[in-house]
Amino acid sequence: MAGREEATVSAGMVAIGDEVLSGRTKDRNIGHLASVLTVAGIDLVEVRIVGDRQKAIVEAVNALRERYDYVFTSGGIGPTHDDITADAIGAAFGRPVHEDERALDLLGRYYATRELEFTPARRRMTRMPEGSELIANPISVAPGFRVENVMVMAGVPSIFAAMVDNVLPTLRTGAVILSETVPCHFGEGDIGDALAALQKAHPNVAIGSYPKSDGQRYSTDLVARARDRASLDEAVVAIRKMIGVREGAGSHS
Amino acid sequence: MAGREEATVSAGMVAIGDEVLSGRTKDRNIGHLASVLTVAGIDLVEVRIVGDRQKAIVEAVNALRERYDYVFTSGGIGPTHDDITADAIGAAFGRPVHEDERALDLLGRYYATRELEFTPARRRMTRMPEGSELIANPISVAPGFRVENVMVMAGVPSIFAAMVDNVLPTLRTGAVILSETVPCHFGEGDIGDALAALQKAHPNVAIGSYPKSDGQRYSTDLVARARDRASLDEAVVAIRKMIGVREGAGSHS
Repeated sequence: MAGREEATVSAGMVAIGDEVLSGRTKDRNIGHLASVLTVAGIDLVEVRIVGDRQKAIVEAVNALRERYDYVFTSGGIGPTHDDITADAIGAAFGRPVHEDERALDLLGRYYATRELEFTPARRRMTRMPEGSELIANPISVAPGFRVENVMVMAGVPSIFAAMVDNVLPTLRTGAVILSETVPCHFGEGDIGDALAALQKAHPNVAIGSYPKSDGQRYSTDLVARARDRASLDEAVVAIRKMIGVREGAGSHS
Repeated sequence: MAGREEATVSAGMVAIGDEVLSGRTKDRNIGHLASVLTVAGIDLVEVRIVGDRQKAIVEAVNALRERYDYVFTSGGIGPTHDDITADAIGAAFGRPVHEDERALDLLGRYYATRELEFTPARRRMTRMPEGSELIANPISVAPGFRVENVMVMAGVPSIFAAMVDNVLPTLRTGAVILSETVPCHFGEGDIGDALAALQKAHPNVAIGSYPKSDGQRYSTDLVARARDRASLDEAVVAIRKMIGVREGAGSHS
């Protein structure tokens, strides 16, 4: 974005899990969060993926929470020994980590109803840093939690998405970025120079260029993004005109 | 991994592009690189996703290239104004960025054959930091490049994958991590305590636990990872035994 407006709200994300870094699991939470935040008017500025190691989690969370309005984490809050996110968040904030009374109550009742033993492993899911707020989990009950500007959520995509839905209405949001895509059958190399001139002429609009290939030849999606409608419309008209001029010149190749 | 061996080779990745952070493009390069490196015996330890901003790219690349044996980047080496990765890498290394003679030759001949104009936009794709080595691009010719331990590659997934294939044989690799998955129809909460004990008893094996849901109930994939076969086999036998004991106890729920 050329020139951030005053009304922007920024976010970072830390995706936690050895399984993502080993390729065993293809992450779906990053793309989901990116789409949801864009629609909500929160700019996702940086994502880090780290393994199940406390030092790496602490470093990533502390770097991003200083820098952005909000930080979202995914993964590592389940019942097994490799779920170390609660302890890492506690360490990042220098807060002690305890079993939370509200979470014990929620999960105790849930397991009682289902006649499941409330094992020490399951009790792990009630551990969170002192002073956390709960993030409701409508799917498997074990809650996520919020500490200051950090939202700690599950890695299972359906649960992650449900927690995002629950926490999003409580967050400050900025002006939504409006976006329009102009498909263009020229390749990037054909239009790159004209496009650079257009970007210069429309500094309040971010013009992105995304090549596509059908296996035979390249075409391009031109995407204009802006926070005000008038600037966006002007840029889109100019982009369409640029494409039309090239078509008229017959230099399409 | 509990206790890194001496033969490990580490890597970081920087995925570059506003389109990933806006959710417009769902990244596929991270998962691909993770899988390929795991098979090759290189540990992907950290990934960062940043937008098309020089400062963010420089910071991420400099942080990771200090820390890991290799760094791979994706995105931002095309012909348009928002392709700023070459300049950012030059800035990260403090090296001037020029049009590269070898790349000019490759692309000049390619466009001549196809009767395409070698526009200033297309010439952008020959710009790289002084002293770069080329990474061949068998798909659309415009090369990636390597500066010291940083491999700079395209964001289009097919081209990214081809460049990874070309660069991988030139890299040092470590002992491959062997991995075995034991499916388990118990949920994580049922087996978490037993699993924690198993992890303690097998410190040379990393035991991961990945919940799955069929919409009705949870089951778990237990994944053991180790660099030596004997340790791995011992852990897998112990995991199977643990599951068998629980089945025998009839406490499956």
